Amino acid sequence: MQTKTSLVTGGAGFIGSHVAKHCLAMGQKVVVLDDLSGGFEDHLPEGVTFVQGSVTDAALVTKLFEEYKFNYVYHLAAYAAEGLSHFIRRFNYNVNLIGSINLINESVKHKVECFVFTSSIAVYGAGQLPMTEAMVPQPEDPYGVSKYAVEMDLKAAHEMFGLNYVVFRPHNVYGENQNIGDKYRNVIGIFMNQIMQGQQLTVFGDGTQTRAFSYIDDVAIPIAKSVTIPEAYNEVFNIGADKPYSVNELAGVVGECFNTTPDIKYLSARNEVLHAYSDHTKAHKVFGEGTNITLKEGIARMAAWAKVVGARKSKEFGNIEITEKLPDGWAVIVEKPVTETELV
Amino acid sequence: MQTKTSLVTGGAGFIGSHVAKHCLAMGQKVVVLDDLSGGFEDHLPEGVTFVQGSVTDAALVTKLFEEYKFNYVYHLAAYAAEGLSHFIRRFNYNVNLIGSINLINESVKHKVECFVFTSSIAVYGAGQLPMTEAMVPQPEDPYGVSKYAVEMDLKAAHEMFGLNYVVFRPHNVYGENQNIGDKYRNVIGIFMNQIMQGQQLTVFGDGTQTRAFSYIDDVAIPIAKSVTIPEAYNEVFNIGADKPYSVNELAGVVGECFNTTPDIKYLSARNEVLHAYSDHTKAHKVFGEGTNITLKEGIARMAAWAKVVGARKSKEFGNIEITEKLPDGWAVIVEKPVTETELV
Repeated sequence: MQTKTSLVTGGAGFIGSHVAKHCLAMGQKVVVLDDLSGGFEDHLPEGVTFVQGSVTDAALVTKLFEEYKFNYVYHLAAYAAEGLSHFIRRFNYNVNLIGSINLINESVKHKVECFVFTSSIAVYGAGQLPMTEAMVPQPEDPYGVSKYAVEMDLKAAHEMFGLNYVVFRPHNVYGENQNIGDKYRNVIGIFMNQIMQGQQLTVFGDGTQTRAFSYIDDVAIPIAKSVTIPEAYNEVFNIGADKPYSVNELAGVVGECFNTTPDIKYLSARNEVLHAYSDHTKAHKVFGEGTNITLKEGIARMAAWAKVVGARKSKEFGNIEITEKLPDGWAVIVEKPVTETELV
Repeated sequence: MQTKTSLVTGGAGFIGSHVAKHCLAMGQKVVVLDDLSGGFEDHLPEGVTFVQGSVTDAALVTKLFEEYKFNYVYHLAAYAAEGLSHFIRRFNYNVNLIGSINLINESVKHKVECFVFTSSIAVYGAGQLPMTEAMVPQPEDPYGVSKYAVEMDLKAAHEMFGLNYVVFRPHNVYGENQNIGDKYRNVIGIFMNQIMQGQQLTVFGDGTQTRAFSYIDDVAIPIAKSVTIPEAYNEVFNIGADKPYSVNELAGVVGECFNTTPDIKYLSARNEVLHAYSDHTKAHKVFGEGTNITLKEGIARMAAWAKVVGARKSKEFGNIEITEKLPDGWAVIVEKPVTETELV
């Protein structure tokens, strides 16, 4: 069998580095494109070809497609801070939409066999629960809008040009290699980082909001495998864990793994969906059942990793576009402005 | 009463120049921002302040908001070639989405009283007919996706920051000041230009596709007035004519106005909605009945204007991103590439 070559964008990031690892294990040649804005070189699995750069750099994207003639594209690069997206609208659409369009253009031109895109449950909005793929999405924040726009564009590209795609809508993924130094997203990483720094755990609202936190293997393995499963082509899949936990419960589990009772500081509630959980029947049918790793076991694995890596200092996000109504604790980030090109 | 200051983007264009005229008539001070990519300085109504530039120029947009402290924003600037949008994806999203986001950011910051946005019936996709505002849009091409993304972003900006908006979804608008030299859109203008140059009329498909062609006054007057109608705030309105005509019938009416029997050249069908017409009950309730100008009368008015202006040479669109499946007659446009900055 001919070796397949894949592009994994965001492959130095959390989910991307795991997907890249599984792609290598499947015998693919893997090129990672990552600007290291949220990822780290030491997350790159051994054996990938690493290119530092951004999906927003159209000339670089064009050059990579010409050089490597990719069979598959796994597009995981994104700026995924949903709550912050209200305040960084232009940046959000530039990275998450225009960046994706650069890849779609080249994938059409080079007749890529399958384009795998990680969208988000943010596309659903605060609709009925559980969220199922048959619902028509109605996203309610710029992050969700950007992800849904890419989904719609991929569908249009399939219908016009025959580009095959698989869309995944993962949710609340956690595990080893997660950027626990990002204070704008990933509540589990934020909690671990706060505990290791002896700080209070910060929770927006009263902590009763629920999410079904998903261990990385239950997400990254189906994403990597999807290109080899024809039934998955041109379909959309919710993916992740089934059981929801409140943020307060989560804080307890994380505390246990660090042998501490969490001291929670409650902040003003954000404009966010209170209870979000999604139906995974469709994914189970096509990809089989997941690994069934419990929250406690997954958190314990991640905690073991985090203890080795240690606490990381948050990167400051400098180019907030709108400061009105910025949640508590995020305002500090406007102190040290940087240019957009430094961040993209 | 205090004089209100308005920004009309695309105010040298077709619908924009009419909206600017009605805004002046309502006693507003009007600033027009237009890059003249599709508009003409001689369309500008007397009395507006004209700034040549693009909505994609974030620094310019910021400067204008600081200088003029706009009460209202009428955002009509767009690259509206729906059929071409498959082939110019990045350009489409950059102009139609990122350009809009620059304006939304500044409108939030400067507490603009109302943001009026011209979307399109392209957001609906090939759903049930007639299209009504209660349907959840499912756009099928990059142009429709970009317009719908802006609608969703405006809703999010309203909910988070209280920015008031009015969204219009006009369709198939024609009349004086239409760019009849644009060969990628506006079938009526294309027909007139072809007749005046003694060419055959080009029709994609068999000409049985129908559209309800809308005379400009029935669209531009409600758009201009909307900022003074509180019931219109934070609502979406279909707007335009009710009666659909086939493209073949249309060719007949245009021919009549030029005392000629149209000679039609049928080209391969495009990937487009076959029958599109929309329900205007909601708009009639809030804005009253329209002017009820018939197709024949509207076309006659436009033809009288076109005969004075004369035939215009098509502007070439140089930066096609994907040339595969480009419809007949559009391929020529790749011959003379220009840079994106020349076009934006």
